Amino acid sequence: MSLHLHDTATRTTREFHPRCDGVASIYVCGATVQGVPHVGHVRSGLNFDVLRRWLRHKGYDVRLVRNVTDIDDKILTKAAEAGRPWWEWAATHERAFESAYDRLGCLPPSALPRATGHITQMIDLIQRLIDKGHAYPAGGDVYFSVSSYADQYGRLSGQKLDDVQQGETLASGKRDPRDFTLWKSAKPGEPSWPTPWGAGRPGWHLECSAMATFYLGGEFDIHGGGLDLVFPHHENELAQSNAAGDGFARYWMHNAWVTMSGEKMSKSLGNTLTIPSVLQRARAAEVRYYLVTPHYRSTIEFSEEALAEAVSTYRRIESFLRRVAQRTGEVEHGEVRPEFAAALDDDLSTPQAIAVVHNAVREGNAALDM
Amino acid sequence: MSLHLHDTATRTTREFHPRCDGVASIYVCGATVQGVPHVGHVRSGLNFDVLRRWLRHKGYDVRLVRNVTDIDDKILTKAAEAGRPWWEWAATHERAFESAYDRLGCLPPSALPRATGHITQMIDLIQRLIDKGHAYPAGGDVYFSVSSYADQYGRLSGQKLDDVQQGETLASGKRDPRDFTLWKSAKPGEPSWPTPWGAGRPGWHLECSAMATFYLGGEFDIHGGGLDLVFPHHENELAQSNAAGDGFARYWMHNAWVTMSGEKMSKSLGNTLTIPSVLQRARAAEVRYYLVTPHYRSTIEFSEEALAEAVSTYRRIESFLRRVAQRTGEVEHGEVRPEFAAALDDDLSTPQAIAVVHNAVREGNAALDM
Repeated sequence: MSLHLHDTATRTTREFHPRCDGVASIYVCGATVQGVPHVGHVRSGLNFDVLRRWLRHKGYDVRLVRNVTDIDDKILTKAAEAGRPWWEWAATHERAFESAYDRLGCLPPSALPRATGHITQMIDLIQRLIDKGHAYPAGGDVYFSVSSYADQYGRLSGQKLDDVQQGETLASGKRDPRDFTLWKSAKPGEPSWPTPWGAGRPGWHLECSAMATFYLGGEFDIHGGGLDLVFPHHENELAQSNAAGDGFARYWMHNAWVTMSGEKMSKSLGNTLTIPSVLQRARAAEVRYYLVTPHYRSTIEFSEEALAEAVSTYRRIESFLRRVAQRTGEVEHGEVRPEFAAALDDDLSTPQAIAVVHNAVREGNAALDM
Repeated sequence: MSLHLHDTATRTTREFHPRCDGVASIYVCGATVQGVPHVGHVRSGLNFDVLRRWLRHKGYDVRLVRNVTDIDDKILTKAAEAGRPWWEWAATHERAFESAYDRLGCLPPSALPRATGHITQMIDLIQRLIDKGHAYPAGGDVYFSVSSYADQYGRLSGQKLDDVQQGETLASGKRDPRDFTLWKSAKPGEPSWPTPWGAGRPGWHLECSAMATFYLGGEFDIHGGGLDLVFPHHENELAQSNAAGDGFARYWMHNAWVTMSGEKMSKSLGNTLTIPSVLQRARAAEVRYYLVTPHYRSTIEFSEEALAEAVSTYRRIESFLRRVAQRTGEVEHGEVRPEFAAALDDDLSTPQAIAVVHNAVREGNAALDM
């Protein structure tokens, strides 16, 4: 069976055909490095690590780019509150995120580009949009003109154009409340970079289009991220890249949230759920097991009881492997069972795949008991 | 006693006065991420980590920027030979270097900027140099005019101007064999970035001036790196930054090489001396001890015997600490001995400082024996 993936843009599960035979190119929206990562932050990285490993198992040369948003209002505010340079704040938390991903067993991305490192590519993209009439400078900012692209805007998220209102209301030359910022003009005391339209810093949406296409080309295979990014972030990425003439992502994959008491895990709720903190209560492999066992498109309602349950389930697999090792000297890597492969090929159905593992453990234990 | 540091530019040991009270700003030339790090590569990172920790102990807020050269001929060649994208090659080896520094106990830098991420800052610096008559574009390249700065060029390295010949001979509009490249024009198939003088990629010297001043300001405290960087790399950094109007580094510190059989450790010699390989023969703390015990301005002639000797010497300190812990329950952190502090204040004299440690161990062991 071939791999099928649920594509947010078409709302269907489609067979995966890469743009280039044997190569799978993936862009995953990474962290805004403003604080210490908690379990809600890393779910996306873990889910796309499962995808990457499965693609690799199937023989693909996988190129996975995960970005770092190293400039934004929160980084500037928090660094200022702490009395630290903004770039030190960003670098410190970039490192905290990478350390969390490493500890949780994520393969290192093929590239880990930072927003501030891709200003020339952003300028190029803005210029192409202005040239085609899809963007306009106004008072030092540059906006994407949603009305210039009205026939296609909303395609990814299904958002109705009438309901859209983005960013600040009409000020400083913004023509339409639906337009979004490509480039923000410099404010006194804030870091800025020069452009033909004035000094400033990147709009959030712009950076991902610029980085994805610089590394993976104008058209690439999969764009991924958390469900909260579908609108407006990914809708705007798609709009600006398509409007500039790039094919952009062929598949859009979104993982569901980790919630607590039914709400998206917030900073205040998440304080005890930072990765360093959780790794004091469970081993990295157990935390990974807990976070990847549910289907990536199902919400995880975090609870300590559910984590403890996952830990004990994971340990049943380990106990079995120890038992086999005691009996046979070592555990050999065998073939992947067809029903395990079929589960992962079916839109990465990890619950089914892990059920296959537990069946194998039960059968194996029974055989050892005889 | 106050800290004194040997300054390559004045060839004297000078008292350290930071530009801003209580803050020490340091720029260290980091790796060209073209391969796996060996012991010769990491010596610089370790030496400046000792400096940083000592400054921190003395109460300074230390801002240490270490760059990553993520684009250069060797990266492009090696990636092409391996059939991998250049950016994946660079990212993979950046990670290998960071992992080596982490394992050897180096504090993470305050920022880890990449050359390719600072094109706008380079364009700005080139423009300032052209405006002042110190640089000229020629055939898509941009050169620094050494003759325009002849009265000051050579100040850091003592290099005689008559002996200088940099890069390719006179071609494509280069006016003087002494001139060096600020910006290299794009070659077909190679990555490039747009500038007002044509698409291309950064010259090696330019990137460090652009990054150091972006993060640390036009004038900062200490610029460090390996001795092989004094000429031409640091001479050219100093020339272009001063010529553009920046005060640049107030102290220049250079660590000596690690040699094998009297030669600078080369790739071919260094294959068995990669950090992952050496860490199979000695623990990280032991390798660190081996590399920081000699004075940073003394050459280390690498040998397995000397490494083994360092391991056993380091273990004498550990044995003593274990003995104390057995006797007293735990080892308390006491005050730093004045003679230890005096040694490090004297241009980071680690051999003297470590001798103080060994004296303390001998005295302590004698006391425990009684």
